[in-house]
Amino acid sequence: MKVKLVMIGFGTVGQGFAELLLRKKEQLQKHYQLEPSVVAIADLKYGVAVSEQGVALEQALKAVSLEDGFAGAGLAVKNITTEELLKQMDYHVLVELTPTNLQTGEPALSFIRTALETGHHAITTNKGPCALYLSTLLQLAREKQVQFRYEGTVLAGTPLLNLAETGLAGLEIQKVEGIVNGTCNYILTRMEEGMAYQEALKKAQELGYAEANPEADVEGWDAVAKVMILSQALFQHRISKEDVDRQGITDISVADVEEAKKQNESWKLIASVENRNGRIMASVKPQRIPNSHPLAGVKGATNAVTLTTDYLQQVTIVGPGAGKHETGYAVLNDLIAIHQKMA
Amino acid sequence: MKVKLVMIGFGTVGQGFAELLLRKKEQLQKHYQLEPSVVAIADLKYGVAVSEQGVALEQALKAVSLEDGFAGAGLAVKNITTEELLKQMDYHVLVELTPTNLQTGEPALSFIRTALETGHHAITTNKGPCALYLSTLLQLAREKQVQFRYEGTVLAGTPLLNLAETGLAGLEIQKVEGIVNGTCNYILTRMEEGMAYQEALKKAQELGYAEANPEADVEGWDAVAKVMILSQALFQHRISKEDVDRQGITDISVADVEEAKKQNESWKLIASVENRNGRIMASVKPQRIPNSHPLAGVKGATNAVTLTTDYLQQVTIVGPGAGKHETGYAVLNDLIAIHQKMA
Repeated sequence: MKVKLVMIGFGTVGQGFAELLLRKKEQLQKHYQLEPSVVAIADLKYGVAVSEQGVALEQALKAVSLEDGFAGAGLAVKNITTEELLKQMDYHVLVELTPTNLQTGEPALSFIRTALETGHHAITTNKGPCALYLSTLLQLAREKQVQFRYEGTVLAGTPLLNLAETGLAGLEIQKVEGIVNGTCNYILTRMEEGMAYQEALKKAQELGYAEANPEADVEGWDAVAKVMILSQALFQHRISKEDVDRQGITDISVADVEEAKKQNESWKLIASVENRNGRIMASVKPQRIPNSHPLAGVKGATNAVTLTTDYLQQVTIVGPGAGKHETGYAVLNDLIAIHQKMA
Repeated sequence: MKVKLVMIGFGTVGQGFAELLLRKKEQLQKHYQLEPSVVAIADLKYGVAVSEQGVALEQALKAVSLEDGFAGAGLAVKNITTEELLKQMDYHVLVELTPTNLQTGEPALSFIRTALETGHHAITTNKGPCALYLSTLLQLAREKQVQFRYEGTVLAGTPLLNLAETGLAGLEIQKVEGIVNGTCNYILTRMEEGMAYQEALKKAQELGYAEANPEADVEGWDAVAKVMILSQALFQHRISKEDVDRQGITDISVADVEEAKKQNESWKLIASVENRNGRIMASVKPQRIPNSHPLAGVKGATNAVTLTTDYLQQVTIVGPGAGKHETGYAVLNDLIAIHQKMA
C-alpha cells in the first residue's frame, strides 16, 4: 500500500530517516507491501519541498549542504506555512521531527494536533509534546480513530515502547527503570576508569554526546522528560516535572565511584517510574547498583531499561539511545506499525 | 472474538498457561477483545477433557493432584486419541505443550502438522519439532494461510522472537548471540563466587534448574537446539546439530574463572548464529567476554540475547529463560499475536 508522508524538520533524524527509506525501499515493499512516499518536507532552513508524486529524497539529502536548500537542489518548493501545508496536502502520516522544546512542546505540539484533528496518523521523535501532553494526544488519536506513535522519544530506535506494547502484551507492567541518558552514563563510565568529572564531561562534549550547555543532561532534565513520557505511555498517568524526584550527577566524585567499585557496585543515573497500587512514584537519581544487576553492565552511551511485570519477572532491553540512523529507525518502526493497522 | 483452543500436554507449562487464562480473563477481553475458550485438553496422565462450551480450567488444575485426573475432577472426558481429537474438534488454535524430543520431534511434530494441514493455527513451546523442522512448519503454515508461533522455545516468555519480528521490523539481523541456557549460566555464576563445578552443578540440581542427568544442559545440547531454531527463525536457514560448533562447560575450572575475573572478564556459554554474506556460522561455546559487554552482567539462571542489526547496532534483551508462568506467558503472547491477525 502506498503511504503518503509529510515530514516536518529535516535535521539529523529527518535525514537519517530519509536515508533509511531510500536504502530499505525494496525490502519494505517485499516484506510489508509498504510503499512510503514523502509528498512534502518542510524545514526552516531548507524550505518546503512539495511533490504529489513524491519528493526525490536523494535530492533532498543533497540540499543540506547547499546554501539555497531544497530549491537549490532542484526540488519544487512552495511558499507556505507548515500549518497551511498540513491543511492543504493529501497525506496519511505526519512525521514530526522538529527540535525539542521541553517548556511548551511547541511548535511540534500544534503540528501534531492539527494532523490528528484532521484525521491523519502522526509519528514524532520529539520529547517536548510527549512529555507534556502524551495522554491528551493519545486520547485525541483514539477519538479520531488514527494512530499516534512516538518510539523515538525514549531510547531512540531501541524498541522499548514496542516491547511494552507487543512483546509484553497482556502483562501488567508494575515498574520501569533504567539508564535513559547516554551522556550521563558515558561520563560515569569514564569516571569508573579514573577520569575526573570535568574531564569526562569535556570528552563527552568532544564526542558530540553532550551539548555546550550540558545542564539538560547532567542535571537530569532530559531523563525527567523521558520519565514523564513513560508514566503516560505505560501507566496512563500524566505527571509534571515537579512530580519527579530529581537529582543530577554533578555531585558524584571519583572517590564515590571508586568506593562503589570496591563493593562490586556501579553508580548509574537511574530513571524510574513505578505504579504502587495506583500511586505513581517517579524519580531520576544517581544510584549505586550491584554489578550483578543487568543495568550495571551497561557502559558508555548505551541505554537500558528494565520492565518489572506481574508474570514475567524482569525483562531488560539494552541498546543505542541516540544516533542518526538509530533514531531515524524509530520513525521507520512506527511507520511499519501504523501501516500494518491501516489496511 | 471467541478463540477456541485445543491444548495437548498439561504439565508445568500447560498449567501455567491455564492459570494465566483464568487470571487474565477480564484483561484479555477488555484490552484485546479476546475470549479464549479451551474446548479440549489432552494429557497422557490426566486423560482427555472435552467441552464445546469450554473446559472449566479451575477443575482441570485441580485434577493434577488427583489420582484419576480430569475424570476425577468432574470434567467430561472422552476415550479418543490425540490425532482423532484434532480431526474431530471444532477449534481455531492448537496449543502444543508435550515433552521435548530432540531426536525426532515426535509426537509433537505430528500434532502440529495435523493442525496446520487442516487449516488451524498452532502454538508450541516445544524445542524438538522447531529445532528439526521449523522451516518446514512455517512453510506449511504459509501455504495453509494460518499462523505458527513458537516464542516459548527460546528464552521462555522473554519476547526475543517477538522483538526480532516486531521491535526490529525492517532491519536486517546479521548476528544473534547470547546466553540461552540458564543452568550453565547459573553454574558459571556460582563458580565466579568460588564454588567448584561439581558443587555448583549439585546446587543447580537441588534448585530444579538441572536434570538428574545434566548432559543436555552442560554439554550444550539444549543450546544447540535453540541455535537451530534461531537459524531458521531469523535467517530462514535450516541447520543440523552437526553444523553447530559445540563445546560444553564441563572443562572450565575455578582457576579459569578466577583468571578471567582478574582481567575483568567473565566466562559464559555463548550460543551464536551469524549470517556472513549468506553463509551461516553457528556455535555453542564457553567464551571469556569483557565485563563491559551487556551479556557479562547477566548472572544466575537469567537468559540474554544480543541481536546485531544493520542500522540499530546491537540490541540486547535480558529476561527469564524458564519457569511455569514465564513459559506459560509465551503461549499467551503467541495467542494474542494470532488473535490480532485473525479478525
